[in-house]
Amino acid sequence: MQDSLGIVVPQRVKFDSPITLKSGTVLDAFELVFETYGKLNEEKSNAVLICHALSGNHHVAGFYSDDPKSAGWWNNMVGPGKPIDTNVFFVVGVNNLGGCHGSTGPASIDPKTGRPYGATFPVVTVNDWVESQARLADHLGIETFAAVVGGSLGGMQALQWAISHPHRVRHVLAIASAPNLTVQNIAFNDVARQAILTDPDFHGGDFYAHEVIPKRGLRLARMLGHITYLSDDSMAKKFGRGLKKGIYNYGYDVEFEIESYLRYQGDKFATQFDANTYLLMTKALDYFDPAHAHEGELARAFAAAQSDFLVISFTSDWRFSPARSREIVKALLDNELNVSYTEIKSSYGHDSFLMVDEHYHAVVRAYMDNVGREAS
Amino acid sequence: MQDSLGIVVPQRVKFDSPITLKSGTVLDAFELVFETYGKLNEEKSNAVLICHALSGNHHVAGFYSDDPKSAGWWNNMVGPGKPIDTNVFFVVGVNNLGGCHGSTGPASIDPKTGRPYGATFPVVTVNDWVESQARLADHLGIETFAAVVGGSLGGMQALQWAISHPHRVRHVLAIASAPNLTVQNIAFNDVARQAILTDPDFHGGDFYAHEVIPKRGLRLARMLGHITYLSDDSMAKKFGRGLKKGIYNYGYDVEFEIESYLRYQGDKFATQFDANTYLLMTKALDYFDPAHAHEGELARAFAAAQSDFLVISFTSDWRFSPARSREIVKALLDNELNVSYTEIKSSYGHDSFLMVDEHYHAVVRAYMDNVGREAS
Repeated sequence: MQDSLGIVVPQRVKFDSPITLKSGTVLDAFELVFETYGKLNEEKSNAVLICHALSGNHHVAGFYSDDPKSAGWWNNMVGPGKPIDTNVFFVVGVNNLGGCHGSTGPASIDPKTGRPYGATFPVVTVNDWVESQARLADHLGIETFAAVVGGSLGGMQALQWAISHPHRVRHVLAIASAPNLTVQNIAFNDVARQAILTDPDFHGGDFYAHEVIPKRGLRLARMLGHITYLSDDSMAKKFGRGLKKGIYNYGYDVEFEIESYLRYQGDKFATQFDANTYLLMTKALDYFDPAHAHEGELARAFAAAQSDFLVISFTSDWRFSPARSREIVKALLDNELNVSYTEIKSSYGHDSFLMVDEHYHAVVRAYMDNVGREAS
Repeated sequence: MQDSLGIVVPQRVKFDSPITLKSGTVLDAFELVFETYGKLNEEKSNAVLICHALSGNHHVAGFYSDDPKSAGWWNNMVGPGKPIDTNVFFVVGVNNLGGCHGSTGPASIDPKTGRPYGATFPVVTVNDWVESQARLADHLGIETFAAVVGGSLGGMQALQWAISHPHRVRHVLAIASAPNLTVQNIAFNDVARQAILTDPDFHGGDFYAHEVIPKRGLRLARMLGHITYLSDDSMAKKFGRGLKKGIYNYGYDVEFEIESYLRYQGDKFATQFDANTYLLMTKALDYFDPAHAHEGELARAFAAAQSDFLVISFTSDWRFSPARSREIVKALLDNELNVSYTEIKSSYGHDSFLMVDEHYHAVVRAYMDNVGREAS
């Protein structure tokens, strides 16, 4: 039952008709990389789109042939016999526009200049992503998704699908998400951005030409991010006040185990992720606010929605707290939409949505089994 | 009643006998700047020491003659007729060893080299500060303080006084404090430190010689610090998701009001505070852990304590939460010490200890009035 997908292969599609972004900028053409798992049925009624969060990508599940360690970021959730069952569903993972894993983004070559976009790459929003994902659906011949699923920033995209394309998505799964960022989250994002923007190696976003990367800034951004993904409790359980060498050094080298962990995570990320993409992802998070166009009334933002919803939150998630998920639920109920809600007891903070938890996976499985029955 | 102290003048004292720090390093001599308010009575029984937190200093209350905006950092708490009443008490404020407001610190000239200490200035601990403050007490002819008072890191010093010098302090006021930092706090501190340490203008701590300051790093550290001093609620009330220009810019300039606030605070701090002192203060926070020498049993750390205690926490303080203050109270009660505890309902987060709150000030006033009656 719990088999992996095995080897998967990314695909690529180029869209040659222009896309007008929320910012007003027009991209004449763009490419998206994506992966698909399972088979699209004849009725094309079993497609599920998985939207990724800040540092995710199209590689949701399975492995690449050349790297046995390359499990997709949601391999515990998506696969044959798993909660999102690829024996039942045709699952689509896509690297978002502006990403750094193959889709057109700041590091891509701008055909107009022959150089990387860099600072000229436009800011993109959750709405823009949904539009680009709709193009991908068209390309794949999918008129309506059985479900659009995402955690965190991915959950925001799933919610936006219900708003932008109410007839193209039957079910929305918004996990560890929020109707917008709190000001505290915006503040953390801005510190992360300032770390990157003020790194001398950032060169105003055009670091590619200088053959450097703003490692210091990206490393700090990632270290800070990690603190907010974890709960104080889970950090206490995993690291406590444990000392790397058992004694105080009275210096600035690694002293506590948590420092070692964060610096390692920061260093690793800094060489693997594009700084401009990081900036752009945090802005997309900041901007998402469907109630903004409706005088702050979230219920009105969902007035046109037709989907059914599963909303899931985690008790220890202080970045996207259960209270924020309840706001979503309330707004959906105000529109007499069909919504299921579960608050999962978990100590892993915001990262809980990526973890294996029996209750959490059972809830997703039960919901998706029902989606599958509808789709067949 | 609520008059200010008016003009105050800092003083300076040099200690020529060596001090051996916790790290094992010996400082042959050091200077401390301090201020005193009110009059030491004949019995020398009315002295109150105020210990400062991370970015504080000796200028606790009153004003400097050349600057009407120069109110001390606790001017709302300390003064004639105020909760810590300078008509009753002889109040002492001191800039901690390693500070950057006049006491010997990393920017001071090392007499051995004729150059600023910089990277060679030793890491100091809360214990070291208490020892240096005891020397100041000797200098002022104070055998026993009526009270040692501090908030946050200042509260840690007050607690350490009760442990290190049980017969030299009759009352300890530990406000918005903790028996040690949680791992989450250590993690935030390490991000702040890494921001400074990796700033190219830091030059390994010897930036003075290069005539630059690591502004970028210090600015990030302060921005991050500010987020943790405030509560999510207080930020929401003060800034919400308010936009500086009313519309989205789709760029990286200031967009949300919170960004403007944090960047302003960061910029201001970066030109006023010494980066090495910032590093050293965060390490002192990380190291403070009186239970560490007693297999983690906090009660044993207070076994020798003789003082009475007032412990105060604030409901919205997620950095030094009420739960941490309760640990202190529990450990004191285990030693059958006389302890008063109040949890103040406040929405201002960790910064609450610096704010005027009627209940909070009334509690301090009531306690200190009693201390004053004892001392007279």
